Amino acid sequence: MISVAIMGHGVVGSGVAEILATHKQKLFAAIGEEINVKYILDLREFPDSPFADRFTKDFSLISEDIEVRVVVETMGGLHPAYEYVKECLSKGKSVVTSNKELVAAYGAELLAIASEQNANFLFEASVGGGIPIIRPINQCLVANNVSEIAGILNGTTNFILTKMIHEGMGFDEALKLAQELGYAERNPEADVEGHDACRKICILASLTFGKHIYPDAVHTEGITKITAADVEYAAVWGGVIKLIGSVKKLDKDTIDIIVAPMFVPGNSQLANIDDVFNGVMVRGDCTGDVVFYGKGAGKLPTASAVVADIVDSIKHIKSRKYLSWADSDNSSVLPFEKSVRAMYVRGVTDDREAAYDRAAAVFGDIHRLSKDNAPEGEIAFITEPLPYEEFESKLNELSEIKAESVIRIGDL
Amino acid sequence: MISVAIMGHGVVGSGVAEILATHKQKLFAAIGEEINVKYILDLREFPDSPFADRFTKDFSLISEDIEVRVVVETMGGLHPAYEYVKECLSKGKSVVTSNKELVAAYGAELLAIASEQNANFLFEASVGGGIPIIRPINQCLVANNVSEIAGILNGTTNFILTKMIHEGMGFDEALKLAQELGYAERNPEADVEGHDACRKICILASLTFGKHIYPDAVHTEGITKITAADVEYAAVWGGVIKLIGSVKKLDKDTIDIIVAPMFVPGNSQLANIDDVFNGVMVRGDCTGDVVFYGKGAGKLPTASAVVADIVDSIKHIKSRKYLSWADSDNSSVLPFEKSVRAMYVRGVTDDREAAYDRAAAVFGDIHRLSKDNAPEGEIAFITEPLPYEEFESKLNELSEIKAESVIRIGDL
Repeated sequence: MISVAIMGHGVVGSGVAEILATHKQKLFAAIGEEINVKYILDLREFPDSPFADRFTKDFSLISEDIEVRVVVETMGGLHPAYEYVKECLSKGKSVVTSNKELVAAYGAELLAIASEQNANFLFEASVGGGIPIIRPINQCLVANNVSEIAGILNGTTNFILTKMIHEGMGFDEALKLAQELGYAERNPEADVEGHDACRKICILASLTFGKHIYPDAVHTEGITKITAADVEYAAVWGGVIKLIGSVKKLDKDTIDIIVAPMFVPGNSQLANIDDVFNGVMVRGDCTGDVVFYGKGAGKLPTASAVVADIVDSIKHIKSRKYLSWADSDNSSVLPFEKSVRAMYVRGVTDDREAAYDRAAAVFGDIHRLSKDNAPEGEIAFITEPLPYEEFESKLNELSEIKAESVIRIGDL
Repeated sequence: MISVAIMGHGVVGSGVAEILATHKQKLFAAIGEEINVKYILDLREFPDSPFADRFTKDFSLISEDIEVRVVVETMGGLHPAYEYVKECLSKGKSVVTSNKELVAAYGAELLAIASEQNANFLFEASVGGGIPIIRPINQCLVANNVSEIAGILNGTTNFILTKMIHEGMGFDEALKLAQELGYAERNPEADVEGHDACRKICILASLTFGKHIYPDAVHTEGITKITAADVEYAAVWGGVIKLIGSVKKLDKDTIDIIVAPMFVPGNSQLANIDDVFNGVMVRGDCTGDVVFYGKGAGKLPTASAVVADIVDSIKHIKSRKYLSWADSDNSSVLPFEKSVRAMYVRGVTDDREAAYDRAAAVFGDIHRLSKDNAPEGEIAFITEPLPYEEFESKLNELSEIKAESVIRIGDL
């Protein structure tokens, strides 16, 4: 019998306890031992829980108990999750977490402590909820040099964009619906401004390229400025708008990483990932493109990924999994102004033909987009790929166009 | 330094040797040891290979060498692959294979020998080429009860169907193109008759449900009878025709497993998997639907999956991976005549309206399909779900309709 502790009895933590109970037999078959939930740490009381007798408010009970070999962190937030996880790892316990904020902020340090202590620090559930991503990248694609990862990493924004694309809703209306359905928080900032997706692409980038990439080094744009008109122009162009977290390896020392809404071509595997689903495309030199798709959040999907990590930790209780990356100063991140992409521009002008001609004179080849029922004076076009700073300065030259929307074109 | 041997220097085997050379540094970082290709077994000569000095025609050199800890089987076919793999496992060597025919025919026996010897028998590359599937199902989804797996498991047939769907080719024309492009063999039977897909769904079924399912117990239909007219009616219905390998758990003791062309709804994640790509959908009770997508074949994709298994075998040289299933007598396979699905029928008749009325009288609710330019007297409809034997007997009652095509409707 292996004893584990669960810190945090919220949505994911209670799901973990539930799966450990409901899937007991299957888990026993997988590891040959019973998993005993010895403690659940939470400041609240849960007198009606089948685990009511395991609850404690005292973290030291867990950290001091040598019987507890695996600790699950599903508290969320940075503090005290960070301090607790660090303490557990320092005592040689393996830690499993679903907390992307924690991994994105302290992954390198916590992995280093785990390595020193010959313990495991696993976080499959931190990216893509129940979709297997971290382990496949780390193990199955080990014989590949991964050049690029791009994904739809946030279900809330994908739900909102799906409603805008397929039902013609505006952003505010779609957000309100997402809130009513419980897909978006009352304060939706972390989702709609792209911070959640940013943490996830940072974790995938760190894992893939071996250096910790901190979220504050990553240019992050949300979807709050996307309008129904932009969605329509994307359709005219032959694609859809998705919030994409993307990282590309440019050379040995440089990665191009960004979170931003992008035009995604209709034939991309990411274009058809709708509603709250997530999808991650991994481009390997041997495999080509591999895509993982599924529910990126939710109680049981996420909890099932946590439990898979518990199982893996128990199986490797004496032999560490080789999962680690070095700390870094973010110097390998290409400044986003240097990042090269084709750009979509929508704006208003007094004289459309003259404005298109001027745009072509300034940008070179442009691809004009036109849609039915466009307001008078509206123009939209797509440029050739160019560095963002060059794009900005050229757009500023175009004084006859008042740009209302600017969106990157994804090469996905 | 860990010594390995590669048996078979064909497409996949030579790819394995190539990746072990080109990705040496990355692999060293992953396992902390160098991988030495000590022998390559092949009856042919490869004087220009960088591994020319490692070639041997003598299997006993490999099986008798205690330095060889991991043996790669990429010979293909059942014999002597089976005898060689058995011998290596019996001597405590781990074996990694890409040979789906071998795993589908002898998996239970070989896994049992591996277990006795505390060695590993791994075969990620046998299903889905470079797409991570076996390991994610076995490890990441361990906290799920999987109820269903359905996939596009054969790239050749998917390429042919894609050409039929998107370019209006007939089967023969599309097959010829696939052969010209090297996607189909001169004798395409194993692909177009569904045998290759059958081996793969048998491996996934065995892995998921814990009992060996042998291919000869699985009803298997190919795509040779699919016509352009069927493709058009599928489009009218709102979907596409795909060759699907499907397995569903009906109860503790019964699975419904089949390989057949099916109508796939356009909003299914499997509908947009085109060309030589493969995709596998796994339905778990916690995760919901998870889909894995990528290149299902090809030298480097498949070889990279083999190399990932080599790495895993080396990491677990003293601790077996828990991957196994029991042998079985196929008694858990539902006879395909009992399998319940909605059915598409295309046929000819003298009097369309009367025939539709008769069909409705016999089948109950039917969904009529009509397309432009249909030949006179052609009718097409979809029934409600019913057992196959009942479908057949009802179709026989309909003497006024000469059925030309019958295709299952996938609930995917």
